[in-house]
Amino acid sequence: MKTVIVGAVAGGMSAATRLRRLDPAAEIVVCERGEHVSYANCGLPYHIGGVIADRQALLLQTPDSLRARFDLDVRTRTEVTAIDRARRLVRLREAGGREYEESYDRLVLSPGAAPFVPDLPGVERALTLRSVSDADRFTALLADRRPRTAVVVGGGFIGLETAENLRRRGLRVSLVELDRQVLAPLDAEMVTAVHAELRRHDVALHLGTALTKVLPDAVQLDGGRLLDADLVVLAIGVRPETGLARAAGLTIGPRGGIAVDETMRTSDPHIYAVGDAVEKSDHLSGEAALIPLANTANRQGRLAADAIAGRPARLDGRLGTAIVQIFDLTVAVTGWSEKRLRAAGRPYQAIHTHPASHAGYYPGARTMALKLLFDPHDGRMLGAQAVGGDGVDKRIDVIATAMRAGLTADQLADLELAYAPAFGSAKDPVNMLGYIADNLLTDRQRTVQWHELDAAVGAGATLIDVRTAAEHAAGHIPGSINLPVDELGDRLPEVPDGEVIVYCEVGQRGHTATALLTGRGRRAANLDGGYRTWRAGMTSPWADPRHG
Amino acid sequence: MKTVIVGAVAGGMSAATRLRRLDPAAEIVVCERGEHVSYANCGLPYHIGGVIADRQALLLQTPDSLRARFDLDVRTRTEVTAIDRARRLVRLREAGGREYEESYDRLVLSPGAAPFVPDLPGVERALTLRSVSDADRFTALLADRRPRTAVVVGGGFIGLETAENLRRRGLRVSLVELDRQVLAPLDAEMVTAVHAELRRHDVALHLGTALTKVLPDAVQLDGGRLLDADLVVLAIGVRPETGLARAAGLTIGPRGGIAVDETMRTSDPHIYAVGDAVEKSDHLSGEAALIPLANTANRQGRLAADAIAGRPARLDGRLGTAIVQIFDLTVAVTGWSEKRLRAAGRPYQAIHTHPASHAGYYPGARTMALKLLFDPHDGRMLGAQAVGGDGVDKRIDVIATAMRAGLTADQLADLELAYAPAFGSAKDPVNMLGYIADNLLTDRQRTVQWHELDAAVGAGATLIDVRTAAEHAAGHIPGSINLPVDELGDRLPEVPDGEVIVYCEVGQRGHTATALLTGRGRRAANLDGGYRTWRAGMTSPWADPRHG
Repeated sequence: MKTVIVGAVAGGMSAATRLRRLDPAAEIVVCERGEHVSYANCGLPYHIGGVIADRQALLLQTPDSLRARFDLDVRTRTEVTAIDRARRLVRLREAGGREYEESYDRLVLSPGAAPFVPDLPGVERALTLRSVSDADRFTALLADRRPRTAVVVGGGFIGLETAENLRRRGLRVSLVELDRQVLAPLDAEMVTAVHAELRRHDVALHLGTALTKVLPDAVQLDGGRLLDADLVVLAIGVRPETGLARAAGLTIGPRGGIAVDETMRTSDPHIYAVGDAVEKSDHLSGEAALIPLANTANRQGRLAADAIAGRPARLDGRLGTAIVQIFDLTVAVTGWSEKRLRAAGRPYQAIHTHPASHAGYYPGARTMALKLLFDPHDGRMLGAQAVGGDGVDKRIDVIATAMRAGLTADQLADLELAYAPAFGSAKDPVNMLGYIADNLLTDRQRTVQWHELDAAVGAGATLIDVRTAAEHAAGHIPGSINLPVDELGDRLPEVPDGEVIVYCEVGQRGHTATALLTGRGRRAANLDGGYRTWRAGMTSPWADPRHG
Repeated sequence: MKTVIVGAVAGGMSAATRLRRLDPAAEIVVCERGEHVSYANCGLPYHIGGVIADRQALLLQTPDSLRARFDLDVRTRTEVTAIDRARRLVRLREAGGREYEESYDRLVLSPGAAPFVPDLPGVERALTLRSVSDADRFTALLADRRPRTAVVVGGGFIGLETAENLRRRGLRVSLVELDRQVLAPLDAEMVTAVHAELRRHDVALHLGTALTKVLPDAVQLDGGRLLDADLVVLAIGVRPETGLARAAGLTIGPRGGIAVDETMRTSDPHIYAVGDAVEKSDHLSGEAALIPLANTANRQGRLAADAIAGRPARLDGRLGTAIVQIFDLTVAVTGWSEKRLRAAGRPYQAIHTHPASHAGYYPGARTMALKLLFDPHDGRMLGAQAVGGDGVDKRIDVIATAMRAGLTADQLADLELAYAPAFGSAKDPVNMLGYIADNLLTDRQRTVQWHELDAAVGAGATLIDVRTAAEHAAGHIPGSINLPVDELGDRLPEVPDGEVIVYCEVGQRGHTATALLTGRGRRAANLDGGYRTWRAGMTSPWADPRHG
């Protein structure tokens, strides 16, 4: 059995090494267009910033090391230019120009995804960051030209990592993003802290703005504004590399990626495809999705090898769990966002909390913002977002695990998570989400979301701030009256008739106050996430009246 | 409805506040024998060490704050001395001596567990650490007597935390443990690093040794040895406080705790019990278990309130997830240990890995030891242990979540965990456990455990070190021959006939070598966890020939 693999990073390399372990006699040829194999592409921004100072650390393997350990025939600077499916041959072209054919029994395509480059005047000088060679270009420019200003276009994960690392190198950095916010997977009220963190580190944000032109030492935005730009970096997303697959007549899916079944097989039974170039199935909707993440690429590579070796292989729908460090802030997400659920017309319930990373009485605790989305009927979890510091990764990983396993939101209450004061709380933030979900699913309590507040007050609801007088004085929602929760029982006559919406700082005292009021026969709801979530939402670019 | 709650920490307080939120009209009386309510008992050792400098930070609530916010009638220094079940009355005694009765519709017992104090000469001067008052005694002694030496008896979680915090205060600390190891939930090869860490911080370990006598300025061990001890601390476990329940004729379970059903109800339908005093059900065996952990106590308190209020309530079997910081080392466990499985005669498969906390090419990665135990037939996960630094808590929490949800070990491979180089690896340590489990469950690979090696070699197996010559020279398993994995394919003729056991540093190269050998028709197995696990096991007190 002879397998030819196109692409020697992540998915392709996982397929190759797994295949070797499954079959020591297999003939395995790996073709890589670029110069390097199996490199740490997720580390590239940090190499530019000097965090990973040693370039060699990024190169996890070489063709020689792969030949020695796994008996792989790795051919770098060798592009596969065509597939002859009828004859089961690929056409290869070496960097030197030599062309030849190679037969295969099975072909694995792992071409990845290419940074999208819009067709704009002057765009040729813009940099993208995908390979070690790209990073080399960055570092050479930084060393030779000593640029002082940079414009990063695109506020996704790679754009933010690149912006941070260019700041680390001392450049003045502007970030241009077409959307009103960076990090599209975050909802409006969750992204506010990210914008603040970027500004705190002197990244100039230009949101809701398009790039129109690249000039020799600047870029132009729509409206004509010019930004100094010794360096221009494009990070506006990636497109699956499907040229080879299209030319060979393989089926391309609705999202523009190579279509594969659960075993990574394309429309040609002898050809498999893995990684950023292929469409995955979304965990929630089952629909085709492009999810260019390293963990999924690696998993697919292994499964393709299993399938080729005749073992059972099946990739489940993807949650798309992801994480990014932005200066001192960590942002992690899994599943769907609220705006995506809303756009899809899918019913959902949101919960916002602001727990401490570990017990508040133990030094070093830091507050995070944690959001959970679940189905209000059956409790199925739909997505989660966390923004903070220490412990953000842990909570999203636990929720992603619970989602994958099919737990309902209220079942989070019963998880036994490792507790000591330095690591969590006796009721962990994840448990608390479960408790709150339980209250909502059993109709014990009703909450109002920050973006629903205006309408509720407009309909006549009274807004009560149950925090202390001092907290109220330091900032409150306009139109609210102050009745501290600890006095509420005695001051019930002061609560106006009709519907009441209570709020506190983060939602916990509001919960107690709401229980008290509903227990006394009042129609009451708690402002989910409290004043803190409301303020974050109202100061987000989405709530800015200029954007209507 | 009038509910009387005995005990105002953790479980009792969770029951009281939950009950209030469920029923604003309920009469709720909370009786607490001690001076303080709702304090952070898990923080007490850190208060002694000065990490939590502010004593006030430990006092999360006061009777006044609980009355104001939750309308609770909290009576401190008030002991419940008897229950008259027929008349539904409890007898109370105030610290001043006044006695009176209080009726109840429902009674919740949350008396906790008391540190065990053995009946030894001189034991009266030994300290225990359970309450804020106990901590006050410690800090007063530290301030007034300026002790220079301490003996901590008991190597469990609290013993280790206390030892560390007394070191932090500059005392010379000895730790005496009857077992051959500290931290009973850890297996022998996992605990070696803990012993090393304690010694590195100058905690003198006296393992396999009993305390026989407490002298005015020393303790005596069996065998007669004396250890200087200005302070003596007993931390040899806790016993459920069942005096009140026993006297009232409530059923006591096989493990000596108050017996309750899934809704926290005792043998008397009007009496509930929660927290460290009650028996839980073990997740794996369903058998009664004493699990004195704060998260379970809190959960039980809430469920008891739910049950009293007529809501559905059900506590699932407990995994007993726990974590402890020991100087620069973090130790976390969930489920059963290997020795416990072996003692119970339950079939299991073990996996040992030594993954980096995050991508090795990103600064600050630290290696952890990670062990998973699962059923070799159906893949059900039975337990996990992790010892290391950063990221230990996350991996155990993810595994505990997967166990609770009923995932099998191989399904860990498909978890989508948040990956960026600072947080994990594209194949997270938890995914890797899944991959290895998959190989073992599908008979793709056989492993040998460190403690099985002697027998295997005795039966004629050849031991091959597949690391580099330099690694081999720096230390290897006696009797092994060195054939580096990258040369193995070419040097197959040098591999002696018969069964072969290969090993590398942590098991990964050994996996590749084993696949190569079995693929070539050889009977080969990989030493699980590699040289590192073997060495940890062989240097553990359990492998010490003096202990036979």
